[in-house]
Amino acid sequence: MAIIKTEIRRGVYIDSAKLMKLQRSLADFDGILDTGVIMGTDSNKELLSHIGLTSPEILASKPDELVIALKADDEKSAEFALSKVDELLAARKGNNDQDYQPRSLETAAGMLPDANWVIVSVAGRYAAGVTREALRLGKHVHLFSDNVSIEEEIELKKQARELGLLVMGPDCGTAMIGGMGLAFANKIRLGPIGIVAAAGTGLQQVACRIHQLGSGITSGIGTGGKDLSEKVGAITFLMALEVLARDPDTKVIVLTSKPPSPKVAEEVLKKARKAGKPVVINFIARPVTTLRDGNLFFATGLDDAARLAVELANNPPQIGSDIDVDLKIFKPEQKYLRGLFSGGTLAYEAQYILAGYLPKVWANSPLNKENKMENSLVSQEHSIIDLGEDEFTVGRLHPMMDNELRIRRLYEEAKDPEVAVIMLDVVIGYGSHPNPASEIAPAIKKVLDDTKKANRHLEIVCVVTGTDEDPQDFNEQVKLLKEAGAWVDPSNEVVVRRIGRILRALAERDSEDTAAIGKPVDLESLKKPMQAINVGLESFSENLKDQNAPYVQVDWKPPAGGNEKLAGILERMKNL
Amino acid sequence: MAIIKTEIRRGVYIDSAKLMKLQRSLADFDGILDTGVIMGTDSNKELLSHIGLTSPEILASKPDELVIALKADDEKSAEFALSKVDELLAARKGNNDQDYQPRSLETAAGMLPDANWVIVSVAGRYAAGVTREALRLGKHVHLFSDNVSIEEEIELKKQARELGLLVMGPDCGTAMIGGMGLAFANKIRLGPIGIVAAAGTGLQQVACRIHQLGSGITSGIGTGGKDLSEKVGAITFLMALEVLARDPDTKVIVLTSKPPSPKVAEEVLKKARKAGKPVVINFIARPVTTLRDGNLFFATGLDDAARLAVELANNPPQIGSDIDVDLKIFKPEQKYLRGLFSGGTLAYEAQYILAGYLPKVWANSPLNKENKMENSLVSQEHSIIDLGEDEFTVGRLHPMMDNELRIRRLYEEAKDPEVAVIMLDVVIGYGSHPNPASEIAPAIKKVLDDTKKANRHLEIVCVVTGTDEDPQDFNEQVKLLKEAGAWVDPSNEVVVRRIGRILRALAERDSEDTAAIGKPVDLESLKKPMQAINVGLESFSENLKDQNAPYVQVDWKPPAGGNEKLAGILERMKNL
Repeated sequence: MAIIKTEIRRGVYIDSAKLMKLQRSLADFDGILDTGVIMGTDSNKELLSHIGLTSPEILASKPDELVIALKADDEKSAEFALSKVDELLAARKGNNDQDYQPRSLETAAGMLPDANWVIVSVAGRYAAGVTREALRLGKHVHLFSDNVSIEEEIELKKQARELGLLVMGPDCGTAMIGGMGLAFANKIRLGPIGIVAAAGTGLQQVACRIHQLGSGITSGIGTGGKDLSEKVGAITFLMALEVLARDPDTKVIVLTSKPPSPKVAEEVLKKARKAGKPVVINFIARPVTTLRDGNLFFATGLDDAARLAVELANNPPQIGSDIDVDLKIFKPEQKYLRGLFSGGTLAYEAQYILAGYLPKVWANSPLNKENKMENSLVSQEHSIIDLGEDEFTVGRLHPMMDNELRIRRLYEEAKDPEVAVIMLDVVIGYGSHPNPASEIAPAIKKVLDDTKKANRHLEIVCVVTGTDEDPQDFNEQVKLLKEAGAWVDPSNEVVVRRIGRILRALAERDSEDTAAIGKPVDLESLKKPMQAINVGLESFSENLKDQNAPYVQVDWKPPAGGNEKLAGILERMKNL
Repeated sequence: MAIIKTEIRRGVYIDSAKLMKLQRSLADFDGILDTGVIMGTDSNKELLSHIGLTSPEILASKPDELVIALKADDEKSAEFALSKVDELLAARKGNNDQDYQPRSLETAAGMLPDANWVIVSVAGRYAAGVTREALRLGKHVHLFSDNVSIEEEIELKKQARELGLLVMGPDCGTAMIGGMGLAFANKIRLGPIGIVAAAGTGLQQVACRIHQLGSGITSGIGTGGKDLSEKVGAITFLMALEVLARDPDTKVIVLTSKPPSPKVAEEVLKKARKAGKPVVINFIARPVTTLRDGNLFFATGLDDAARLAVELANNPPQIGSDIDVDLKIFKPEQKYLRGLFSGGTLAYEAQYILAGYLPKVWANSPLNKENKMENSLVSQEHSIIDLGEDEFTVGRLHPMMDNELRIRRLYEEAKDPEVAVIMLDVVIGYGSHPNPASEIAPAIKKVLDDTKKANRHLEIVCVVTGTDEDPQDFNEQVKLLKEAGAWVDPSNEVVVRRIGRILRALAERDSEDTAAIGKPVDLESLKKPMQAINVGLESFSENLKDQNAPYVQVDWKPPAGGNEKLAGILERMKNL
């Protein structure tokens, strides 16, 4: 019968790569059935117990203790394997053939003064310290380590922003800079597409698909999966976007992220709209409401993002201003929309589309309850009123047959000095009013004359739904409305998106750019040949070697041999 | 100073068109500033008060009382106008020149025996009764009236389904049948596209845009905006979809709806997948997660739906079976997916895509909290496990470097007789395991051999992320995995959608078709020239006249003169 044998070692620090190698080597001895070499954390102990490796000693072990557990045919085999542990731990480190490994980052930086990057993959609790040191030395950091707190992440990224340095991570699996891969990274052809990703394997998937489709990338900048959380606020993401927007070699940018904070996603899109080049967006689980918004192209997935980016790089689209009115004609207080609808579906669609442009649109018949107008008769901020709703039609004609109520409301809304745009739908056809424009157009004209007298510009926009075979004559209706001064289109989507763009621009005109601005990232630092210092997993040095990039592996040990109190004192002394 | 004068009439029933006309006529008298002619409901009274027409009498009026309110320059003008009310109400009804108007639907049906449709636009509280009568006479009903309760709607629709008749409505603004418009409807060219719409102006917008793009429609079938609510369960919508699927003239179907119940929307999509022709979907506010799923094409809006439909009608796509495995190779109890991921983003994307195929997918790192696995070590139903999550990597190597934990888990999952599909991602490149397929492929082979011995088929599917320039050799990795028996693709989306299709088909194999089936709608009844009976707004008869469709207008009055108790007795007597 199989036996379980355990050895616990206290106060030992061994990195996870070495643990794995030890575990593998132990499993190769005769009579050994299964092995587990772990630090005694709860989740590790659970994993071991799940594979049948458990004992009272294992259960009692602590996170800073090394647990070596063996399932063996007999006592003798187990004891023999355990007797070899020291020998195995002392064996040669990896196949990195660097002659001398400095003990400190500072020494390493002296050995390789042109190194622009430091790769950090030490255990999470030490990672912030190493990153801080790297920033102090003026290096970008690829922070592979996980288990770094969000507070530390924010502090490191803010500090880096002041210095114009990128902190890619924590928990950043991959980056591809200037044709060179860091950590988990694929060999991707150089090409016209730049990628920013809060999504490790997302970045790899997009980059590989771009390569497979025959194109290539300038850089693929990882940020760590939490960069687009509300707390972190996309610090690294926005820095990376900004530098790629500035890079003349990057013709198309791809932005991808694990599910982001909706608010932060909006902030990123706002900046992306100003990139001056096509930007493909794939934020996982963020619904696609349109395939294009100006220079932004929305993908339904990672693969689709790659396909779109390659297409756009091969056939560059026209990217012009997306506003066809001069914003200066509006007064500073003008910012709101009033949509006066006769068609319920058109009103719903307008709300859905506008959600992509405006923070909140009130409605008497809202898509989401929290946007319900307090009083359907009194508009507030952006409001969309469906005048065909029961509340307006009990005992009255539907507003498609009778324009009176809508015209009254139009007069009312036009008087509000905060209103910038009024939208009306004019739905013709059998059953509808025999000539709605004959009543609505003069009302529009009156309103525009009145607001002109009050020295304001009011934008009145109409969707006309109908055909040239309808009894009212579609073309005549459009003509009357245009002559009165309205902007008219037969597509509800076209009309509403135009409104969205105008109002968004008006809002941005008002809003200060609240995002903190640090020093811009030096574009050249992403372009010049990669040289890196690696602190942690040796295999990352091996990668650099395989790619012929100069590197230095640091023979890193926890400060004060893992004694955190002493380490804290040393850290404070260094900063004096 | 202006005065307000009011007259209240009790026990009078006047339809809303006549009220409007009265209001208009009164406003034309000299000295009259504003008028309101309403039934005394709360919302009507509020509307009047908002335009400054209010008085103690108006406030005291009741829903069944007619309120005639005038704002006038002086008492005399007001009194003169009020003295003309009876005369105005007695004036000729509209310009419908029908010589004799029958009082009952039954008489009308006798006068026009080939009438296939009844249009009902009487006040909501009487509409169900008229509809019931129309169904009894074997007619489809266009139920324009609103303020019909959802309970009545369900009852009417269930009854109609048994009879193979359509109840379009209540609150159905529009329908276009065989080139003829009912109620609010546009004149649309006949053509290859059929539309089903729980969205009145949505139907009009889509139909008009199709017309403007040079194409046309077979039918545009409205259902009323609540048809896709959970309570109604898409009764009319599914009947309409079924008959259009059967119609050889309909080459492409468009389905559109105001925001539907997600559950009912899924039910509709399930049927739509079996339509055997391209179906364009635009359910407002339902996020688009893919642009195509087999014969389903997803539009981002009404305009986009029209564009897509015209494109598909002009260039018919290949519509084949979307499953490339024979479902019979799975045992009846096999139905679940186990996704064993090393890449967090790939696992997230898989969850997001699968939400379009499967009711619930558990995950250790879920997109939505309610899908969180109880225990990451123990899979349940469909599970996606990201083995690169912290809980698995503390003190261990990442699963991209070390395949051991995933292979263990693969063996475990394969033993579960309810598992049909196992997915693995294999991410290569620098940093990753030097030859993952050399370990994973033999494990896959072993698992497939074992399950074969147990007389089960297990589908193992891999996404390989990497390039031909990666150190591991992408093509060799793919080859090893394929030789072991896995289905392999470089696109996560392609792999996950294939899994979604297989598992959805397995689920549908199991699930009984729970939707109640009535009598199918007679296709010919939608094709033969329109003849209709109109009960309510006379302008709808005028529309039919303008379109040269035979019609009969019913001179309808509420049963028992509006006395509902007596009406109830009469109704019960009729059913004896």
